[in-house]
Amino acid sequence: MKLEITRQEYKRRTSIVLDKMKELGLDAFVFWNNTSVFYLCGFSFIPTERPACMILTKHGNKMMYVPRLEVEHATQNQEVSETISYPEYPGAIHPMENLAKAITGMGLATAHLGSDASGYSSTKGYRGPGLTEVLPSVKLTLLPYLVEEIRVIKSSEEIAFIRESARWGNLAHSLLQKYSLPGYLENEVSLRATLETTKSMVATLGDSYNPKVSTGLDPHVGFRGQIGPNSALPHAIDINAVLQPGDNLVTYACPRIGGYTSELERTMFVGEPGPEQRKYFGFMKEIQETAFDKIRPGKPCSDVDKAVREVYEKHGLWDYWRHHTGHALGLLNHELPFFDSGDHTIMRPGMVFSVEPGIFVPGLGGFRHSDTVMVTETGMEMLTYYPRDLDRLICR
Amino acid sequence: MKLEITRQEYKRRTSIVLDKMKELGLDAFVFWNNTSVFYLCGFSFIPTERPACMILTKHGNKMMYVPRLEVEHATQNQEVSETISYPEYPGAIHPMENLAKAITGMGLATAHLGSDASGYSSTKGYRGPGLTEVLPSVKLTLLPYLVEEIRVIKSSEEIAFIRESARWGNLAHSLLQKYSLPGYLENEVSLRATLETTKSMVATLGDSYNPKVSTGLDPHVGFRGQIGPNSALPHAIDINAVLQPGDNLVTYACPRIGGYTSELERTMFVGEPGPEQRKYFGFMKEIQETAFDKIRPGKPCSDVDKAVREVYEKHGLWDYWRHHTGHALGLLNHELPFFDSGDHTIMRPGMVFSVEPGIFVPGLGGFRHSDTVMVTETGMEMLTYYPRDLDRLICR
Repeated sequence: MKLEITRQEYKRRTSIVLDKMKELGLDAFVFWNNTSVFYLCGFSFIPTERPACMILTKHGNKMMYVPRLEVEHATQNQEVSETISYPEYPGAIHPMENLAKAITGMGLATAHLGSDASGYSSTKGYRGPGLTEVLPSVKLTLLPYLVEEIRVIKSSEEIAFIRESARWGNLAHSLLQKYSLPGYLENEVSLRATLETTKSMVATLGDSYNPKVSTGLDPHVGFRGQIGPNSALPHAIDINAVLQPGDNLVTYACPRIGGYTSELERTMFVGEPGPEQRKYFGFMKEIQETAFDKIRPGKPCSDVDKAVREVYEKHGLWDYWRHHTGHALGLLNHELPFFDSGDHTIMRPGMVFSVEPGIFVPGLGGFRHSDTVMVTETGMEMLTYYPRDLDRLICR
Repeated sequence: MKLEITRQEYKRRTSIVLDKMKELGLDAFVFWNNTSVFYLCGFSFIPTERPACMILTKHGNKMMYVPRLEVEHATQNQEVSETISYPEYPGAIHPMENLAKAITGMGLATAHLGSDASGYSSTKGYRGPGLTEVLPSVKLTLLPYLVEEIRVIKSSEEIAFIRESARWGNLAHSLLQKYSLPGYLENEVSLRATLETTKSMVATLGDSYNPKVSTGLDPHVGFRGQIGPNSALPHAIDINAVLQPGDNLVTYACPRIGGYTSELERTMFVGEPGPEQRKYFGFMKEIQETAFDKIRPGKPCSDVDKAVREVYEKHGLWDYWRHHTGHALGLLNHELPFFDSGDHTIMRPGMVFSVEPGIFVPGLGGFRHSDTVMVTETGMEMLTYYPRDLDRLICR
């Protein structure tokens, strides 16, 4: 198995966009969103102060417009038909002026363009005009969510990557559990698990292993500060905790395979848990199972969250509720739709979600498992498979 | 030394914003940018599909508006005067409607508000109206860059953090060099260096060490795929390379201290470099030194890049030029202004920059050192101090 999106799959994705463009009479589409660029051509780059975009013409040509420093990198990509570059930002001439020239050179100065944004934006010191300011004769139609909406249904190739990610997440998490012993530092445990998993992944998958993300620190696995009472914060950040006997742990393991992630989270205990910990663990597990039971195609996402809320209600757990039941995921760690009482999107086969209702007890800790599931023709399939029972989640 | 921004410093930052608000007659300011929120109150959170903002009133009160899951987290922050929450996104009622209610409850329904954006935005599945859509009687003035521009001049507290970051970057890089031996895997080297540095930082700094970032994988140190011929890509991404004798390496080490980063990069060699490698290394060093010589207060940033370009010209190196000389940094790894021929911002004491002109020779490799420097009253001070000479950058 080569862990690479096929050219056929890129063609399929692109043709959905082209159909939409035809319907709207668009001559070309400018993609500023780097996730959309990656989805349509597999080019992964580090966004900075320097504008970059992909122009998709109605003929299906993909032109990357990049700063000089990305030329060789973009040209390596076989989906990219052409690379046009500008020297640098800020530079002597603003990159948007150069882009206007390039678009004019393509015969599109008075065309009907689509775009996912009015222009480039970045928090890293960029300033610049929008597309219509540098191309005043262009007709611009903004479709910010076009690719995001296509991404909702995962193809078989995407599912295979997410499945592969779940597999390595299982190894990463096993190692995390193995090293979660009293006296060890939070980051020490997570980095040991990351290091050992990376080595196994490279040795097993060889050249076909490419996380397609910029950082050298994949797979991400750890606690993100959810250790002891601090685990009661659903979105804690690192606290450099030293693990203590009795600590509640809320973990995560999210390896990247070809840009795709899965999500595995577990509630674990450092040594024997107390009766209160056992009690809330049991409730959490019941709530998660309630969610699993409600996942089936043709029903609204909100059904899942509503059923979950009834269990919080039944056991008087509202004080410990903090967030919805789950979210879709794939190229991003959070995507739409959501298992949320306010999201009435109909579940369809090929949607991939996290299922992670949690209980967060101030002073005691957090209780949350997260599993990645796929909606099938008849119900759902779990893609993660790490043990969920308390007895197998005690670190000793 | 406690590695924490003082309340006095938050007050100083806030008063600059308040002065600007007074000048413009603003009753309150809504900050959506999470870097701005962190700068003004030190609250670090993970942005998701869920809107979050800070409202600064003209009286200096800081109100955090967050989803339920961030309430306890936000309330821990002593700079935050009040926390108002909504249950969840999407939720039964849109969070922007709840925000409108909260702002109305503050007596600001017909006020003159400032904001850094028209509303919340996120690539993670968020959809929603802008501020003026939910508060039609509000007068809104958009100032997207207000805090970014204040951040340009670093205070003594910020400099102290960046200095501390440079210190640990030196250790991380020493370990990276020590482990960069033939046969070792890219991520293995970087994770070993990260792990060992983290342990030393916690043991040395104790509770005062807080990277204030969400990931457990700090300090970032490694190669980001810049190994062997692939180092000729200035923004490569990981390739899971195994180090080979003779490889060019381009490294980075960027530990976070209280949210602040420094930047240290070195060109290294796995064993003895060849004559071509020595030649380009020498040019690179000469170019970087040319840049150092030009950094002084009162002069435009473009002066530095222009002087650097003359050296590329002199040695006939244009084919190997890829990017400008450097960028400011602090809370973000790239900030304005830039050492770029098109950036005429005047250098002022307290600005902190990377200095990193590079030479990128296809087929051979990349040659780039990056040092972090601060503009002083009379010139500049190097904050990074890792050896820059070739003989000390051979891994063996």
